[in-house]
Amino acid sequence: MKIYGDIQSGNCYKIKLLTALLDLNHEWVAIDILNNETQTPDFLAKNPNGKIPLLELDDGRILSESNAILNFLARDSELLPTDPFLQAKNQQWQFFEQYSHEPYIAVARFINKYLGMPDNRREEFERKQEGGHKALKVMEQRLSKTAFLVGEQLTTADVSLFGYTHVAHEGGFELSQYPGIQRWISRIRSLPGFVSMDSCA
Amino acid sequence: MKIYGDIQSGNCYKIKLLTALLDLNHEWVAIDILNNETQTPDFLAKNPNGKIPLLELDDGRILSESNAILNFLARDSELLPTDPFLQAKNQQWQFFEQYSHEPYIAVARFINKYLGMPDNRREEFERKQEGGHKALKVMEQRLSKTAFLVGEQLTTADVSLFGYTHVAHEGGFELSQYPGIQRWISRIRSLPGFVSMDSCA
Repeated sequence: MKIYGDIQSGNCYKIKLLTALLDLNHEWVAIDILNNETQTPDFLAKNPNGKIPLLELDDGRILSESNAILNFLARDSELLPTDPFLQAKNQQWQFFEQYSHEPYIAVARFINKYLGMPDNRREEFERKQEGGHKALKVMEQRLSKTAFLVGEQLTTADVSLFGYTHVAHEGGFELSQYPGIQRWISRIRSLPGFVSMDSCA
Repeated sequence: MKIYGDIQSGNCYKIKLLTALLDLNHEWVAIDILNNETQTPDFLAKNPNGKIPLLELDDGRILSESNAILNFLARDSELLPTDPFLQAKNQQWQFFEQYSHEPYIAVARFINKYLGMPDNRREEFERKQEGGHKALKVMEQRLSKTAFLVGEQLTTADVSLFGYTHVAHEGGFELSQYPGIQRWISRIRSLPGFVSMDSCA
């Protein structure tokens, strides 16, 4: 299978991390977002929404959306709960990630780290801080009680939220005030097979 | 089970529609978003993220995020594919809904319909139009070829995207230019058990 992605994107790194943890063979096709390589006719034919990551199976079937890809790749593994309610909790955290976490933390990071904090985006960057801290507080409340988001076992929801949380400081979010999140990050970093974002680049 | 929601919210109406289609018994607990009833201490104890809809099972377990709730309630029904790849495609459309559709179409509708288009939100409303039409084009491209989003069968992804798409005109999005979407809306409206947003209010 092929995975189209840009390793500097937390949404793509999620997939890279999962394939490392589960030791899944794949071909990584590097796509440069800043160079608009997601907007070429060839790429839009694969994903009309023009976004990465994108999974292409050997039979040509295509899947987009990072969290849907994670859950598909982790099917039949320990990273996906079999109990229906726990599966739903796993998805709950993933929808939380896409709606209440990524639009604040990833966007603030993008403005700061990749755009170099241009003056015309500074106000937007500042506005992202409140929502980002709100999301981190929701995570902290959970991770002060359990080892991982769904419970005591690592699931794909942890991989989803690790993507941008562990680089949240690059978006201006100081994590020292969130000890539960910090312990959770250390726990994930010490997993067998773990790869860092930098080592993938 | 109890479902906490505000029927004027497409995210809550999704759940109401699914329970009608599947004839699921539940107690609906009306929550007024505009009156900040999602921010009371009692509600935040149930959902630290302060959002509806919220599902409370009889044993007290709680689930948030509309699409996670839909998939949980539809488990073991025809609305949730059993094939792993089709399950993943179902989730793909639901993540698309939360990231690429709702933040444009639902927010534009909220500014226009519920806030009455105040001057200080007009520019934001205008900015939402491009992203909303982009999402509708992605849907149209699919629905010009298949009856429903995942394929020829209704799934929870259709319920997810119906929520705000069928009221997109209230956010300024003219649907007459999307014939595939219009046929899909008619198809859903004619399903046995269908309830409209208005009839729920």
